[in-house]
Amino acid sequence: MSDDVQASIEAMARKARAAALKLSQIPTEKKNAILLAMAAGLRAATPEILEANAKDIEAGEQKGLNKAMLDRLRLDEKRVDSIAGGIEQVAALPDPVGEVMESWSRPNGIRLEQVRVPIGTIGIIFESRPNVTSDAAVLCFKAGNATILRGGSEAIHSNRAIAAALQESGAVAGLPDDAIQLIPFTDRSSVTALCQMDKWLDVIIPRGGRGLIETVVSQARMPVIKHYDGICHTFVDPRADLEMAVRICVDAKTQKPGVCNAMETLLVHESVAGEFLPMVAEALKAKGVELRGCDRTRSIIDCSAATDEDWETEYLDLILSIKVVCSLEEAVAHINTFGSHHSDCIVTADDAAAAAFLSAVDSACVFHNVSTRFADGEEFGFGAEIGISTEKLHARGPMGLRELTSYQYRVRGDGQTKG
Amino acid sequence: MSDDVQASIEAMARKARAAALKLSQIPTEKKNAILLAMAAGLRAATPEILEANAKDIEAGEQKGLNKAMLDRLRLDEKRVDSIAGGIEQVAALPDPVGEVMESWSRPNGIRLEQVRVPIGTIGIIFESRPNVTSDAAVLCFKAGNATILRGGSEAIHSNRAIAAALQESGAVAGLPDDAIQLIPFTDRSSVTALCQMDKWLDVIIPRGGRGLIETVVSQARMPVIKHYDGICHTFVDPRADLEMAVRICVDAKTQKPGVCNAMETLLVHESVAGEFLPMVAEALKAKGVELRGCDRTRSIIDCSAATDEDWETEYLDLILSIKVVCSLEEAVAHINTFGSHHSDCIVTADDAAAAAFLSAVDSACVFHNVSTRFADGEEFGFGAEIGISTEKLHARGPMGLRELTSYQYRVRGDGQTKG
Repeated sequence: MSDDVQASIEAMARKARAAALKLSQIPTEKKNAILLAMAAGLRAATPEILEANAKDIEAGEQKGLNKAMLDRLRLDEKRVDSIAGGIEQVAALPDPVGEVMESWSRPNGIRLEQVRVPIGTIGIIFESRPNVTSDAAVLCFKAGNATILRGGSEAIHSNRAIAAALQESGAVAGLPDDAIQLIPFTDRSSVTALCQMDKWLDVIIPRGGRGLIETVVSQARMPVIKHYDGICHTFVDPRADLEMAVRICVDAKTQKPGVCNAMETLLVHESVAGEFLPMVAEALKAKGVELRGCDRTRSIIDCSAATDEDWETEYLDLILSIKVVCSLEEAVAHINTFGSHHSDCIVTADDAAAAAFLSAVDSACVFHNVSTRFADGEEFGFGAEIGISTEKLHARGPMGLRELTSYQYRVRGDGQTKG
Repeated sequence: MSDDVQASIEAMARKARAAALKLSQIPTEKKNAILLAMAAGLRAATPEILEANAKDIEAGEQKGLNKAMLDRLRLDEKRVDSIAGGIEQVAALPDPVGEVMESWSRPNGIRLEQVRVPIGTIGIIFESRPNVTSDAAVLCFKAGNATILRGGSEAIHSNRAIAAALQESGAVAGLPDDAIQLIPFTDRSSVTALCQMDKWLDVIIPRGGRGLIETVVSQARMPVIKHYDGICHTFVDPRADLEMAVRICVDAKTQKPGVCNAMETLLVHESVAGEFLPMVAEALKAKGVELRGCDRTRSIIDCSAATDEDWETEYLDLILSIKVVCSLEEAVAHINTFGSHHSDCIVTADDAAAAAFLSAVDSACVFHNVSTRFADGEEFGFGAEIGISTEKLHARGPMGLRELTSYQYRVRGDGQTKG
């Protein structure tokens, strides 16, 4: 890594820490006023943002990015307006900072409070979607945190324009200097440098492909909140309402196949496989889904053969692997072995079976008679989300504002001493 | 690292994951019965444990360990009995697993619960105190987790005897195989190997010196809950009850100077320094405390000069650094810059000053008119603690049973689909 990159990232990290101490003391009303000013500033900067975005699109076309990537990169007036609308939504959300999570007293008279406080400083590393620059920065800001953003090189012009708009309009309304910083260059070594700033950066959130997350996991000295993939399952129990099971499977697989909470593997109990598999196969094939089944599945319906690799693949596409299982226990064991501990569903009218499944499946979100597509901060009622964490510590599943906070114990007394 | 160590640690980690799935399903009553059986088993194994401990003490004497280290290592009947008593205390604590932290519904009729579940598998790396083998294992077990323990080489015979007693007596009462595993050798490379087992180990908790923690922080691929040092402060505000301030300072410095929540630096507001410093100096010197002051301190009382290094030193000894400050803001800035974000106190009769201090000091525990020695899981009412975390994510400050859990969202509906 060049000394320049290292020095420049360290300077940004130090400034972020200084900004965080100021941010932690800003009252809610002022934070909301700053957010509304940033939303207005972003809308006002639409021409500059679109001009910058055109440069990214042109460079992307020259680099031969595929259509899906160019689509993710492309901004227009409506998309900028929608990013600004997202800021206004965050302004309207309740502020988690200062909430007294618990309070109690001890026999010696000391009074304790566990109070939500900001985490402090957050590094966000993301890939090509420029809207993340704003979405991540404003969520972190509302929770009282300073951010250092490191976006992908494909979106660098757009990211710079969006960050500048937020910083300038925010500053007028009282946003502390360095509360929102974008790394202005895209050297790969900036990721490595960020990973070493554990003295000033409290956490890194990598959002993107497995390669990026792997790099951060192996290099970071501070906590990392990973957003790994979703290999989600639906298990159809002997006592399932089979019509409901078909609706849930079609929704979970086809309503938006390219996202982490879409179903990738269907598990069917042997006692209903003969009746259910032809029903669901017809409905899924009508939606263009390619089916890959185990031997028992293929003895019932016509589909290609699933290999061991299929059970641990996140297709993100209109492909579904199917396995017939002998018991709920076998379904649970399959999910815990091959799944990604993200979101899994049981369809059944048997509440005891559902309870056993929900408590034995080691996943962030477990569903009974609900499509896995509901694993989402907005659907959960969090108002907004920074992503879906696959961590078990600190934040598991959909991460909203509350998961961007820490806590502090505040203890009051009258001169108590231990001796 | 030798392939043998790597293979052997990986085998243990895989077994821990398998045990964790079983542990997560054991009802509270059965866990408590297992704990009581382990307490009885430990007492019954006292002769074997003391015999093993004698080997460690002999080896320690030959290696020239100092008296304090030998004291920490040494067990006798009373200490074994007290370790067993600790297990009985954990049995009596409420079980956090299964607690519904929150429940709510959405307009579309889906019903959500956020439920506490075990973390899963926990690696504990610790140094010479053999009681940690039992204390850490039983706390993790009560919270439904499987543990892999890696103790220091000085205590290896004692650790093996304690682990064997817990495993054997636990197994009779229904403890799953591999729920509590001790790494039976003490190759340094076993730490490195553990740090790479992120597929099977959910978290590592290192307890010990800075060198050990540094190694884990730089190598671990999974989350680490660090227990770094405590550079704790007391700030005496202009409106402090000075008699109370003397009592709190003497307690925080001298009641047990070798622990992380003891005071290391005293900050005194200039408006009361002339009156307060002679009072506190007399009381501290009577307890044998060496004082090191800033220039302004030394113009008021007789003491040696504090250097910049003193402000960031955890003495763990009867030494105190003292600084006169011009304002509460200067005190806060000093603490946030030189402290270790552990535990800090303000002494004042001014509630507004106290509130400003508590919210601006970026530490796990902040105290108003209470000695920092109360930063402790038992004093907080947690019943037992695995340590005092210096993390800001997941667990901050005293860590009890609850901090050894994760959570899961359980979502129930009637066939809801997103499309």
